[in-house]
Amino acid sequence: MNASIITIGDELLIGQVVDTNSAWMAQQLNAIGVKVIRRVAVGDNKTEITEALNQERKRASLIFLTGGLGPTADDITKPLLAEYFGGKMIVNKEVENHILHLFEVTLKKPATARNLKQAEIPDNCKPLFNKLGTAPGMLFEEEGLICISLPGVPVEMMGLMEDAVIPELKNRFSLHPLVHKTIVTFGVGESVLADMLENFEGTLPPSVSLAYLPNHGMVRLRLSTSDSSVQLEKWFEEMHSIVREHVIASEDMTMEQIVSGLLKKHDKKLVTAESCTGGYIAHLISGIAGASAYYEGSMITYSYEAKETMLGVKHETLVEYGAVSEQVVLEMANGILEKVKTDYAVAVSGIMGPGGGMPDKPVGTVWMAAGRKGKVTARKYQLRFNRAKNIQLTAMYALNMVRESLLEDANDSGL
Amino acid sequence: MNASIITIGDELLIGQVVDTNSAWMAQQLNAIGVKVIRRVAVGDNKTEITEALNQERKRASLIFLTGGLGPTADDITKPLLAEYFGGKMIVNKEVENHILHLFEVTLKKPATARNLKQAEIPDNCKPLFNKLGTAPGMLFEEEGLICISLPGVPVEMMGLMEDAVIPELKNRFSLHPLVHKTIVTFGVGESVLADMLENFEGTLPPSVSLAYLPNHGMVRLRLSTSDSSVQLEKWFEEMHSIVREHVIASEDMTMEQIVSGLLKKHDKKLVTAESCTGGYIAHLISGIAGASAYYEGSMITYSYEAKETMLGVKHETLVEYGAVSEQVVLEMANGILEKVKTDYAVAVSGIMGPGGGMPDKPVGTVWMAAGRKGKVTARKYQLRFNRAKNIQLTAMYALNMVRESLLEDANDSGL
Repeated sequence: MNASIITIGDELLIGQVVDTNSAWMAQQLNAIGVKVIRRVAVGDNKTEITEALNQERKRASLIFLTGGLGPTADDITKPLLAEYFGGKMIVNKEVENHILHLFEVTLKKPATARNLKQAEIPDNCKPLFNKLGTAPGMLFEEEGLICISLPGVPVEMMGLMEDAVIPELKNRFSLHPLVHKTIVTFGVGESVLADMLENFEGTLPPSVSLAYLPNHGMVRLRLSTSDSSVQLEKWFEEMHSIVREHVIASEDMTMEQIVSGLLKKHDKKLVTAESCTGGYIAHLISGIAGASAYYEGSMITYSYEAKETMLGVKHETLVEYGAVSEQVVLEMANGILEKVKTDYAVAVSGIMGPGGGMPDKPVGTVWMAAGRKGKVTARKYQLRFNRAKNIQLTAMYALNMVRESLLEDANDSGL
Repeated sequence: MNASIITIGDELLIGQVVDTNSAWMAQQLNAIGVKVIRRVAVGDNKTEITEALNQERKRASLIFLTGGLGPTADDITKPLLAEYFGGKMIVNKEVENHILHLFEVTLKKPATARNLKQAEIPDNCKPLFNKLGTAPGMLFEEEGLICISLPGVPVEMMGLMEDAVIPELKNRFSLHPLVHKTIVTFGVGESVLADMLENFEGTLPPSVSLAYLPNHGMVRLRLSTSDSSVQLEKWFEEMHSIVREHVIASEDMTMEQIVSGLLKKHDKKLVTAESCTGGYIAHLISGIAGASAYYEGSMITYSYEAKETMLGVKHETLVEYGAVSEQVVLEMANGILEKVKTDYAVAVSGIMGPGGGMPDKPVGTVWMAAGRKGKVTARKYQLRFNRAKNIQLTAMYALNMVRESLLEDANDSGL
């Protein structure tokens, strides 16, 4: 079963918003065995939307549209779909009651005429009820095509996919999921891995594909097949054994998920002291639900003064070696371990750019220290990207140092 | 001048990565007067890529491709383009020297055979040199079509766009930029704004469009035109005066940019104390280059113990009122103002979900406090989204409190 996703909105074409909806939808659809074969983004323009529908229905039996369902004049999807599928706009009483209920119970304010106008939908669609907003989803059927229109607001789209669309598709079709198995590697480039896996790749059956997905210092190696007769596990084990030395996870996980998993497994707690990453490490860890069980918090110290008063870094150390130095990150890590009694700490200090570089410490110089009380070690990295990317990479290297400390201590204690 | 962007990669269709490239490219292209009319994402599949090229060239005189230029077997763009435009693969000595130079000077390690294989390019393209990676960009020309292929790694794509593509396009064509003017509003819904602007929208000339872009508690109102005879400024002023009470910026800025701008303007410094947002506020502020001039840092206190030892919150207050309470956020804000001598502080504590809700404090309950020494006030919000969205919204409301404090103090002092 092939699907196309059409995202609608001028804001996508001028780049004012990043389309996160399509990736999320594709994940959900893949998981139930619907293959997304194309994604198309078009503007709030009747001709373009109609042409996209005409093109995509030639290759896909399932078309998703997102966006253009708001209550404002630039939102044209609803009347367009009514016309495209030969229906007319009517007030749907069920949708109207649903909107009234949303305002009364959840939003606790009266619905305006404009809110209620959202109950006007084509008479030839099945409405999908939206718990989190006024725009209903709509399902159209015509000559073997199913076309599902969803709002562009991510949380509303997600709610409708989970509550209505996925159950409906599972119910209607017997699907053959595309199966993926992913290894996560760290600290080694795509080219090196490709050299290691060249022979292996040549032996893969045609129905199995291998993809290299580099991101933030990690490369994910993903095997995929929709052929249920293939023993994907066997190929996965073989690939794993070839690149074993670089593997940090045997399933698709983020670095923060890996570190969080180890902290939970070994019942340890972490605290962080960040300068140049400015809270990004804390943000990654605390983004995981339940992080409060193993994450104490962070001191983010941008200024000399904050490093001294918050972390107890010595003024002389800062003056003698500078904020970006082995000595300072060691004092930061030891300082926070002292202030907040806990198991593990990681500290980072660097120059992320574009300004702040010095002849002996160019932009991209980063010092980091990690470990537990009595065993904190430091490392230096030299990065060469822009500010945002340098911050992301620094966070990955820092979390990787925590990962290595945890594994080393676990090995030492024979766990 | 119309452009289409074709992004290539199975990872886009299974949703393993979010396509941030297209939005960034669209911004750059719009800024120089190239209108992006479609974006299409296809898999690593020869037929699909070829069909996309055939389709897009019918509507656009400029086609951008990203992705599929890596050194691994799933990267098929290069030979495909050679064939499509009737050329053959050859080793380009200039590109080879460029790769050797990259390894020698920047990466400081020897180039492998696989790295050097990237110097093989179609003989009918103009190579675009990539400072940050081994894959060159390529420019093809055929019958009024310009087709530009760029690597999918964001930092490499960005470097090539800035260094090679944008200058080349500016040089070749005299372009008429699409002009946007944007107002940012906060704390009011799209529907309310649409009601306020209904009459205004009816009076706009046909060549001017108004878009509503809701995101994280803000709605951006964007007027656009490519008609240079239109006085966009006049329409912008009129729109501004209609929604004035909700406007937080008269140009397209993020909340953190607005707050940072006010801190700089009034020569004030900020410190933050975060619980539930886990460093996200710090991450937003410190993501702006030069933030160290006005941002001291943050204490991120997840546990009771961290709140006590790091911020000096009283144990009795935590026990009596709970961590998510007016009393605790006031003590957090006053505590950090005391510990780090600075001008302004903001503190947040809430329950972001999915777990942790209580009958009297359901998931989404957030307390925050902001202000300067001697004038810290607290507020409560009740959010109703998932964890990630609750964290984002909390950060926006917290930064907005800082914004309001700064403006109020500036007004009080007659500035």
